[in-house]
Amino acid sequence: MERTTISYDKLYGYMANMLEKGMKYPHASAEITAKVLVEADARGHASHGVARIKMYFDEVNDRQNHPEALAEIVHETPISLVVEGNSAPGFPTSKLAVDKTIEKAEAMGTCMTAVRNSCHFGMAGYWAEQMADRGLIGWAFTNTLRAGIPLFGRERLLGTNPICVAIPVGRKPHFMLDMATTTVALGKIEVAARRSGVMPVGWAVDENGKDTTDAVEVAEINRFDRSPYGGQLYLGGATETLGGHKGYGLGMLVELLTAGLSMGTATYETYRETCGICHYFQATRMDLFGDPKQIREHVAGIVDRIKNSPKAEGQERIYIHGEKEFERREKSMKEGIWLDPATWLRLDDYADRFGIEHIVP
Amino acid sequence: MERTTISYDKLYGYMANMLEKGMKYPHASAEITAKVLVEADARGHASHGVARIKMYFDEVNDRQNHPEALAEIVHETPISLVVEGNSAPGFPTSKLAVDKTIEKAEAMGTCMTAVRNSCHFGMAGYWAEQMADRGLIGWAFTNTLRAGIPLFGRERLLGTNPICVAIPVGRKPHFMLDMATTTVALGKIEVAARRSGVMPVGWAVDENGKDTTDAVEVAEINRFDRSPYGGQLYLGGATETLGGHKGYGLGMLVELLTAGLSMGTATYETYRETCGICHYFQATRMDLFGDPKQIREHVAGIVDRIKNSPKAEGQERIYIHGEKEFERREKSMKEGIWLDPATWLRLDDYADRFGIEHIVP
Repeated sequence: MERTTISYDKLYGYMANMLEKGMKYPHASAEITAKVLVEADARGHASHGVARIKMYFDEVNDRQNHPEALAEIVHETPISLVVEGNSAPGFPTSKLAVDKTIEKAEAMGTCMTAVRNSCHFGMAGYWAEQMADRGLIGWAFTNTLRAGIPLFGRERLLGTNPICVAIPVGRKPHFMLDMATTTVALGKIEVAARRSGVMPVGWAVDENGKDTTDAVEVAEINRFDRSPYGGQLYLGGATETLGGHKGYGLGMLVELLTAGLSMGTATYETYRETCGICHYFQATRMDLFGDPKQIREHVAGIVDRIKNSPKAEGQERIYIHGEKEFERREKSMKEGIWLDPATWLRLDDYADRFGIEHIVP
Repeated sequence: MERTTISYDKLYGYMANMLEKGMKYPHASAEITAKVLVEADARGHASHGVARIKMYFDEVNDRQNHPEALAEIVHETPISLVVEGNSAPGFPTSKLAVDKTIEKAEAMGTCMTAVRNSCHFGMAGYWAEQMADRGLIGWAFTNTLRAGIPLFGRERLLGTNPICVAIPVGRKPHFMLDMATTTVALGKIEVAARRSGVMPVGWAVDENGKDTTDAVEVAEINRFDRSPYGGQLYLGGATETLGGHKGYGLGMLVELLTAGLSMGTATYETYRETCGICHYFQATRMDLFGDPKQIREHVAGIVDRIKNSPKAEGQERIYIHGEKEFERREKSMKEGIWLDPATWLRLDDYADRFGIEHIVP
């Protein structure tokens, strides 16, 4: 029988076991990692879902990711933290950082946290949502691996460097912006490479720093890190005409808040000896600005005014950030999480390596 | 003799007098307003410079801007402020808010400030820079007037909503990102309208929400507020292909942090009875994350690595945000501030209305 969907709990339990038995993740680390991966698939973000087992396996194998290590707080004030990840997986490290950030923000009004020497933390939205679920405004930024080109440059030095901010509106979903600062995720270039081989101008430049539509070339440069040159563009593309300096500026901002404030490694030095990824979190209590219920209602009113405004010709809906993912998750909880055929096979592949039974929905 | 450049001090003194004598701004309000306008011209941002005298005069004339009013702090915690602008000019209101934000951040580590019922505060960069000049990480956001279209919509509801963040790097210029979240400033569409009449796809949509290259049409819709439909696009344009949902999300984020947290008016309701503009400021001490000197040096190292990386074919320089403005300001301080012919004439026009002598360099 062809496998298509699976229940949240079953996929979660299976992944936690894979990570614990197959990759020697401590129990708690396996649980939080599995949870964030499954949450991504439930929201329709396969790029950050369980198929990432390959990436984490490779990292552990290369000793860039040390599952046995534990993150620790190395600097602390009443409203801030610096966390040294000690190359432990990014999920338990981010859980420690975000839990403590929430605790301090609830006590003091806000907390800002810089994390260094972490690994990939999955989708930024999961972490910002933890804060918003507690009524806090949540910020989550991270640097990543070498993917992006500074405007007018040609060396791949910065990451896809996402910006994520969640603002509670008194109901679900929160307003939740979760965006790579590059024009698209690398996954989109890989899909274009497999399908037509071409992509739109504005997604990437070649090794000379010139606009290219050759998705195959860029996907290969990135995948095999074949050359330090050529790679993704930031929002706005390769010129100032459409605002490429702005997207590149947002990518830089994320780099400086994550690697800069944590004294960690910038994207151009990540994934050498260790992952070396850096994050930045901020949680802020809404009562810093008055009655939080009134503020949430006021924010919701603005959101609704935008959402219910007239649509462009040929469009049926104006989306508010966070809605698509929320609706997809509701559907996944009811009908099961859909995984694509390649992901099912990838899970089998790793199950075979780990001597674990294949997953059966 | 044709007028081209003028000294900073002379232009500043002249503008302060224009505002005080001609528009009945209290002395201190006239001084800070003149200062921020002249700073914009000194940095080459004519769009936010002394030519704005027209906008402020119109506001005052329409009683949207009350020069005699004073802003007041209406809510306060050790790390936050809410400022009610009482429709006073945006410059003295922002000075009050930013001075107090800096004072609290220096004492407590951080301060976040939401401002409502303000007026236009000039270039966001001026305010973020005040914080960075004191060694603080400075954030300055503001909503504006109706200019932008939510993705897949067609009603002009959000503003150009700039994001500005300044991070000290231990030398001048600070890293300073100061960007409208729309693809371009309205001024660029007006220039295109005057020159060729056409603009690139991605800058704006027509009244049906469809891509347009007709700069004349869009400039007129905006200038005369002729229709609630049609207007500017956000970074990434009218499709998800180039990331239009991201730019629109950044515009929304600014709206929710400014109008939302301050319980103020969203952009779609500004410039009715009063200006109704809302701002959001944050200042954060770098020692929250460790030794500030080390952190500044580390941040500067990342900036330098990006700046000194190989250039794209045909490009000679990779810019760091804040450099262009800093260099232009240095030149202006040495050689005088250059104003375009239309600006000289506009100053004469208002001098005539106010019974003040024409400005002579």
